Amino acid sequence: MNAQRTHDRTFVRTFFTSPTAVEGEDDSAKMLRSAAQLRGMQAPDIWVPDNEDATAPSMRDEGAHNIVEVVAEHGAEFPGEIHPRVVWHRDDPATRHQGFQRMREIADPDHGAVDYIDGFVIPEVGDVDDWKKADEFITIVEREHGLEAGSLAMSVIVESAAAELAMGRLRDAMGRPSNNLERLFLLVDGEVDYTKDMRGMTPTGELPPWPELRHNTSRGASAAGLIAVDGPYDDIRDVEGYRDRMTENRAKGMTGIWSLTPGQVQTANTAPLPPENGRYILEVDGREVDLREEGGVQVYEGDDLSVEQVGDDSYRLMAGGTKQELDGEGLGEELRDRLAYVPSMTDIVDSMEEFETAKAEGRGHLPGGDDPRLPVPGSLRSPPRPA
Amino acid sequence: MNAQRTHDRTFVRTFFTSPTAVEGEDDSAKMLRSAAQLRGMQAPDIWVPDNEDATAPSMRDEGAHNIVEVVAEHGAEFPGEIHPRVVWHRDDPATRHQGFQRMREIADPDHGAVDYIDGFVIPEVGDVDDWKKADEFITIVEREHGLEAGSLAMSVIVESAAAELAMGRLRDAMGRPSNNLERLFLLVDGEVDYTKDMRGMTPTGELPPWPELRHNTSRGASAAGLIAVDGPYDDIRDVEGYRDRMTENRAKGMTGIWSLTPGQVQTANTAPLPPENGRYILEVDGREVDLREEGGVQVYEGDDLSVEQVGDDSYRLMAGGTKQELDGEGLGEELRDRLAYVPSMTDIVDSMEEFETAKAEGRGHLPGGDDPRLPVPGSLRSPPRPA
Amino acid sequence: MNAQRTHDRTFVRTFFTSPTAVEGEDDSAKMLRSAAQLRGMQAPDIWVPDNEDATAPSMRDEGAHNIVEVVAEHGAEFPGEIHPRVVWHRDDPATRHQGFQRMREIADPDHGAVDYIDGFVIPEVGDVDDWKKADEFITIVEREHGLEAGSLAMSVIVESAAAELAMGRLRDAMGRPSNNLERLFLLVDGEVDYTKDMRGMTPTGELPPWPELRHNTSRGASAAGLIAVDGPYDDIRDVEGYRDRMTENRAKGMTGIWSLTPGQVQTANTAPLPPENGRYILEVDGREVDLREEGGVQVYEGDDLSVEQVGDDSYRLMAGGTKQELDGEGLGEELRDRLAYVPSMTDIVDSMEEFETAKAEGRGHLPGGDDPRLPVPGSLRSPPRPA
Repeated sequence: MNAQRTHDRTFVRTFFTSPTAVEGEDDSAKMLRSAAQLRGMQAPDIWVPDNEDATAPSMRDEGAHNIVEVVAEHGAEFPGEIHPRVVWHRDDPATRHQGFQRMREIADPDHGAVDYIDGFVIPEVGDVDDWKKADEFITIVEREHGLEAGSLAMSVIVESAAAELAMGRLRDAMGRPSNNLERLFLLVDGEVDYTKDMRGMTPTGELPPWPELRHNTSRGASAAGLIAVDGPYDDIRDVEGYRDRMTENRAKGMTGIWSLTPGQVQTANTAPLPPENGRYILEVDGREVDLREEGGVQVYEGDDLSVEQVGDDSYRLMAGGTKQELDGEGLGEELRDRLAYVPSMTDIVDSMEEFETAKAEGRGHLPGGDDPRLPVPGSLRSPPRPA
Repeated sequence: MNAQRTHDRTFVRTFFTSPTAVEGEDDSAKMLRSAAQLRGMQAPDIWVPDNEDATAPSMRDEGAHNIVEVVAEHGAEFPGEIHPRVVWHRDDPATRHQGFQRMREIADPDHGAVDYIDGFVIPEVGDVDDWKKADEFITIVEREHGLEAGSLAMSVIVESAAAELAMGRLRDAMGRPSNNLERLFLLVDGEVDYTKDMRGMTPTGELPPWPELRHNTSRGASAAGLIAVDGPYDDIRDVEGYRDRMTENRAKGMTGIWSLTPGQVQTANTAPLPPENGRYILEVDGREVDLREEGGVQVYEGDDLSVEQVGDDSYRLMAGGTKQELDGEGLGEELRDRLAYVPSMTDIVDSMEEFETAKAEGRGHLPGGDDPRLPVPGSLRSPPRPA
Repeated sequence: MNAQRTHDRTFVRTFFTSPTAVEGEDDSAKMLRSAAQLRGMQAPDIWVPDNEDATAPSMRDEGAHNIVEVVAEHGAEFPGEIHPRVVWHRDDPATRHQGFQRMREIADPDHGAVDYIDGFVIPEVGDVDDWKKADEFITIVEREHGLEAGSLAMSVIVESAAAELAMGRLRDAMGRPSNNLERLFLLVDGEVDYTKDMRGMTPTGELPPWPELRHNTSRGASAAGLIAVDGPYDDIRDVEGYRDRMTENRAKGMTGIWSLTPGQVQTANTAPLPPENGRYILEVDGREVDLREEGGVQVYEGDDLSVEQVGDDSYRLMAGGTKQELDGEGLGEELRDRLAYVPSMTDIVDSMEEFETAKAEGRGHLPGGDDPRLPVPGSLRSPPRPA
């Protein structure tokens, strides 16, 4: 995208990979070229020309050339960030050396692409010492090419138990004088190879679930100020499943997801975001019913719940076949208790800003506070804290 | 409670917070005063005058004065321990300095409260180095006020990924000559702010579940000899849900829970404990039926299971529509297999004592041993280990 | 088994414990003697003469003698490895000293058993420093008895939070010049005592589930090149439950399981392995139907799915009451999408070899590759990655 390469993004929804060289095509860079021209909701936050698994080993030299050519031509107009993935393996020095050489080639200013390269994606990392090797190669590339130290971001694919453990130690490793690990940006789950590394087996060959890996990735990102991204969702026609996965990811604090197609990018860029307008949900008889706004008032349209005034400060609430006599305060509490608020995008952004500001100012956050716009608290169904 | 301040409690059920100063009341300390006078099952094991989130920022100076005043007056008679919560934030030195000043004020012997103060609760901690800062401030407070080093306990609220990771390192950090982290006492989950720190989002704004955080808190406590406490349960009228939560907590080794009201304290002090008397449950036809004791014998009263002697050492067991011919030993095994024992409180205390003694003596514990009073083994439904 | 004692096994299915001395029998070594003569599918991969929990404390000296006697007599013919368990406790130096003395006795070449002893199992370990103590004792035993340093394997039972945490640090500790922790072999979950250490309690005394412990054990093994083994399954007559447990274990990467009886060994040695021949499963109408091979072609025999050619490159697929018109490519995709492959044992071994080779060569593994023999990827139901 731009030449500043300060990875100041704090929210990544989409991580879209493209093969860098396809055999048997007139133009082996065809896929790259079309990806570079994605716009609007099909444009990913992070575009990853993938010179590792998505490109056949025999095509990777050509793939590196293609990255340089296509990014030099289209990078200036590309709306997202560009982070090529190169080869790497914690157990193989030859592969690591190859990854180093390809990064040096791609970032060579003479080739004209580096102005639009925001960083690199390193797969198959091992323990923290292995992460430091990749960081060191990027540092050398920066120095040799006259780029500022730390200006190229480094993202990793977590595909091994050693890398999972490493995520618990980044806070200790980052900021030490002998590395530039502050360049770290995304932590991406790579569950297929992770499963192999863990020797996981299922009767049908399906991927086993790894909620612990996802928790640990999200926690590692949070503790080190990085962004957690979920791995590929292979069944590209299962849009509903992809959406459900994103909902689960968000609940774990994993804001981004891998996309294998422009269609998945579009789904990820749109679907799981909160609705444009917040809305209220009322629980009636075990079901959840949307309320409708009418002149600033939330209206329930249905027969399963009703309120009748039966005295000065006395109300009869009928719901789900039961009756309750309540005073005004009790009625308010009872209704609030049945009410949930689905926050809108604006609510969430506002609330995050408030939270960030509160944090910056060192103000404690009020858990279960009374601001209905807070997206997280679980306090939305709750009465105020007892005073 | 008392002036010895040796946190020799090894079991905490209730952690009850009270606002320290409420605006707009004639007596801003009203809540504190009534909490200090709770007795019996409404008295918490740990009472936390909460000068952080439960008290408005503008009222916290007054809150600190109120703590001193109320504890000086009522502390001697209070049956539980008293651990005020002060402000703290891993990201803000000004907040930390404020926390330090308030602890110094509250613990000043001239103010007459410190004899009844057992320790402090520090919220919003970060990594272990941040915990050490709080420990150091408490050490200074102890020295300046002539208290023994380590005599004031320190409990923390885990509200960040960094703090979650820190819990895995306490064992390494405690006992080093340059700190007094042996003062650590409770590890408390603070899921609302933790969720924000993790950037967790759910469609309706409800709190996402964090079983991993609870496991890691319990494990951190176990590895470092501390006590794990679950965070607040906001829906104070959902007594059943609160009880279920405690059952889940206990299964994870989290013995204590936050209470927001005297009612919750009472529920936590009573409900989830094992029954006074142990009892046997027999599984018949997929259902569990309580047995009744009659003169030292456990009696099953029902029609779904029967035993008939058909020979010298031959029995016919009829249950759930099936018949089995068994010898005496086989019958015993079959019945034992259908039997579960619900331990009583005494059983659990005895068993813990036995376990502690066995540990102290270095005797291995017999897994699946034949003592039916063991509360945990899962061996209660099992035949004895094959000999 | 053999005298080389290089624990070059990389796959362990069964971990079978036998009491070493039973009181009140004419021959207290009876159980050991019969276990030593197990053959075929009843012979475990790892046989553990258990001189800890399975043997009464008063019988353990006799148990150590029995181990020596029985292993000297039968060890040469025993088809699996032999790893006696000795007493140990992280909290008790006297118990640790006893464990040391028993290992020294058992491994004494004058007694004739050590040629067939592959290593020792250490229970109740604590943090890494505690593991180092056991390693040091084994090192001394090796030196005194003229055995090569590191030639006796060391396996541990994880029964404490401290040990659970230690598993995250093995990679750092192994290979340091002052220890021989490279001897580490198996990490075994001991959930009964773990539950006590964590203070877990359930209403009926059943063992609470600890998925986190199992994940962390598997991860620890993977990161340190060890093998993860699940603990005992007490209900020895519940074969189905034992099989289900193994399926869950495999999904977590835990390849081995404890066996309490020769029957459990047989179940573990046979049941959960992939079938001899791979097979295809077709999802029809929500159900999974096995395909039958006929001359190299997989045949579906049923009425719920049919394909009809309706044009040159046009097909009508009828399944589950719906019709789809598709071209040849679309039909292929649709069918592949409904297809799962259940890998055979050979597939898995081949695939692991391929994966190991790929790793060794530093070739990236192609996630979602098109090799239907891969056991894990979840890609079996997936269309090829978009090109």
